[in-house]
Amino acid sequence: MLRSAPQSLIDELSAALPGQVTQNETELNRHASDESFHKAIRPDAIVMARSTSDVQLVMRLCSAANVPVIPFGVGSSLEGQIIPVEGGITLDLSEMDKIVEICPDDLIVVVQPGLRRIPLNDRLAKEGLFFSVDPGADATLGGMASTGASGTTTVRYGSMRENVMALEAVLADGTVVRTGSRARKDSAGYDLTRLLVGSEGTLAVITELTLRVFGIPEAMSGAYCTFDRLSDGVAAATLLVKQGLPIARCEFLDGLSVKAINAYQGTSLTESPTLFLEFHGSKKSIADQADEAGEIFREYGASDFTWTADEGERRKLWQARHNAYPAVLATQVGATALTTDSAVPLSRLPEAVEYAQQVFDDQPFSWSVLGHVADGNFHALLMFDPNDEKAYLAAKAASTKLTTRVIELGGTCTGEHGIGLGKRDSLVNQVGSETIELMRSVKNTFDPGNILNPGKILFPKESA
Amino acid sequence: MLRSAPQSLIDELSAALPGQVTQNETELNRHASDESFHKAIRPDAIVMARSTSDVQLVMRLCSAANVPVIPFGVGSSLEGQIIPVEGGITLDLSEMDKIVEICPDDLIVVVQPGLRRIPLNDRLAKEGLFFSVDPGADATLGGMASTGASGTTTVRYGSMRENVMALEAVLADGTVVRTGSRARKDSAGYDLTRLLVGSEGTLAVITELTLRVFGIPEAMSGAYCTFDRLSDGVAAATLLVKQGLPIARCEFLDGLSVKAINAYQGTSLTESPTLFLEFHGSKKSIADQADEAGEIFREYGASDFTWTADEGERRKLWQARHNAYPAVLATQVGATALTTDSAVPLSRLPEAVEYAQQVFDDQPFSWSVLGHVADGNFHALLMFDPNDEKAYLAAKAASTKLTTRVIELGGTCTGEHGIGLGKRDSLVNQVGSETIELMRSVKNTFDPGNILNPGKILFPKESA
Repeated sequence: MLRSAPQSLIDELSAALPGQVTQNETELNRHASDESFHKAIRPDAIVMARSTSDVQLVMRLCSAANVPVIPFGVGSSLEGQIIPVEGGITLDLSEMDKIVEICPDDLIVVVQPGLRRIPLNDRLAKEGLFFSVDPGADATLGGMASTGASGTTTVRYGSMRENVMALEAVLADGTVVRTGSRARKDSAGYDLTRLLVGSEGTLAVITELTLRVFGIPEAMSGAYCTFDRLSDGVAAATLLVKQGLPIARCEFLDGLSVKAINAYQGTSLTESPTLFLEFHGSKKSIADQADEAGEIFREYGASDFTWTADEGERRKLWQARHNAYPAVLATQVGATALTTDSAVPLSRLPEAVEYAQQVFDDQPFSWSVLGHVADGNFHALLMFDPNDEKAYLAAKAASTKLTTRVIELGGTCTGEHGIGLGKRDSLVNQVGSETIELMRSVKNTFDPGNILNPGKILFPKESA
Repeated sequence: MLRSAPQSLIDELSAALPGQVTQNETELNRHASDESFHKAIRPDAIVMARSTSDVQLVMRLCSAANVPVIPFGVGSSLEGQIIPVEGGITLDLSEMDKIVEICPDDLIVVVQPGLRRIPLNDRLAKEGLFFSVDPGADATLGGMASTGASGTTTVRYGSMRENVMALEAVLADGTVVRTGSRARKDSAGYDLTRLLVGSEGTLAVITELTLRVFGIPEAMSGAYCTFDRLSDGVAAATLLVKQGLPIARCEFLDGLSVKAINAYQGTSLTESPTLFLEFHGSKKSIADQADEAGEIFREYGASDFTWTADEGERRKLWQARHNAYPAVLATQVGATALTTDSAVPLSRLPEAVEYAQQVFDDQPFSWSVLGHVADGNFHALLMFDPNDEKAYLAAKAASTKLTTRVIELGGTCTGEHGIGLGKRDSLVNQVGSETIELMRSVKNTFDPGNILNPGKILFPKESA
């Protein structure tokens, strides 16, 4: 249902927030799409919020006018989360990018939602601290909370769910609420913090986040090894987790990804299933951890386990993993990628990846697989020419087929990218119609007019 | 508002669930109170559920009759959570105590809600696994999820919030919903799992839990040291956390608690602020961790740091900590205890504990303080004769005064015991009236007839 913002509303917003409202073509286009393959749709106008009271004002006016509001950080979402499918106002929070407070002795930082991850970490480094969640993109903290982001360090430090301690948020009617506290444990009433984390801007607009941070480890080491079969690597990694080895990162790439990386960065890595690991701790403990891991990996058939505590060497080692996405994309000029985001119970990872490889074989798109092995989470990058409808439909169908199997295995259609537009049907399949109805009633409680990022997570009611 | 179950409803339940409904005096009394000081109130009848469909049936009939249902595990709650303040039916889940499935390679176990923690761990031990959340009491897993329990190992392994992966639950109208998945990461839609965890039976009845488990560490060591001032111990412990040392347990006792323990178990421990620690890992890593911790503790003035990897010695060391509660209670014959549950930002712990000690001094009750130092969570045990109204009121007032200060410090009125009956006013103080209204609308969405454990977490509307 299209609910475009009438010009009178845009004028009212412009009058109330002079200089903060734009309908500039370039800006409308920039706010029309994220990093996914989903079709771009331009908002009717963009409001640059500078304060919580700006957000309140926008919500009050749009609520009264029944016009959708789409919260926006930098647009790095991967499931169309910021696309204004029903029209309306994009509420850009990127100018609310301050660090409100750093409390080194509490291991806490308070930030505005538009702050990005990398500037935050640059500033925290001066205090010997870091924020652990690393989804790859230099996303905003508000966006990362909204999609329930995680990344390569989740196995040790958790995802946004574990690292957001408290929130300030503005409800659809403009009311400001505060959830959580600065205590590391809190069982005071309903956990609204965790309900807002991962709600993709459909329940409230996050205007402040209190985050848990960690001390920068005294030492870090990187490790690398290859396996003939991915299943052996997964089994070895699972054993590490089971033995409680505090691995900080544990990533895998399939042979195709490594091949793409070799082509991209001119290396000659073995084009086999590869694990990359990282250990954090004291100088002594990272050596011990690497030795323990090496012993297990060799038992499981890795012949080339190698590790280094040298900072330059470690970065070079991880460069390959970090380059995986551009490297794979570079294998097909002009291609766009559909990125799957399956997560399965640990032991089902080899089976799920093998199934994916079978489904993708002989399809009219190229692909590769990589993932967060110690979390059971993997991504397939399915690449196709954006103008090739047949390849696009084949990629969509293959992704759906994989997701169906992943759900049968007890897994989830999305480990860290969220539902957005692209996974709404998978969500129904995963949680069942009773749970969908419960989610719908939660949405309705928070946002009875359905103006907050409508059409995301849940299908619009009329088409459900 | 009293909404007693009419005899016709009890007869209907008895006919539908023969042999599972009782109004036996002993049973009514056993279900009238938990382990807190809150006044006992008997339910009208008790239904022993044996299956999810039993729970559905009870919810349907009680929903139709507008009669409250109070889910019950073993009654080990500490804030009156299971007291039927508006009358009604206690739904005892203790016979739903099966382990449904153990998946050692996924580090997952699926259990019914009436299973207790210790039998679960006895069974898991055969697989080399353990469930980490240890609140002291041998509580049921359903109860622990409902109060958002945690315990001594939370610093390393997390609380119930981090360790419940998926739930099956029955809504007020009898609908069964499933939340979450078996994947270690899941950002699929609203996080209803975390909303139900800590909801104290007011939103739904949990009928099955999928829990994260850990491998039993190869080795464990215990450590012990005393400080002249608690603040030095806290500062040292915070530094350990900041340096990322993966401590498994880090507890403190004040001098009064140690004195009580000496009297109770005939030991001669130094009657000063004391830290107890535990390290988990390989034989090598626990030695290294203990050495690193010892170095830091000595820097902060601990003269007597000692550690052991011997299993018998470790258990003996921790015996003191485990005996703290009975030891402190034994200092006053016939006393009951009001247990506070403050959690503050890490750096504020010394200040909060000092404030508590000031508030409690010269009061007509005896007390001691202990807690989970690396989480910023501490308990004061305020002991009084249950017939001494003056002491009881003084304890209540002191607890409220402490809680007010803790909230000012950015902390929470409850780190792990939940709100129940005892902390409803503190919750209002902590989160503010807007957030309370939001919690109320969430409650109303799940349970429009207000039959699920009414009067807990939120005040009844008429008295709000």
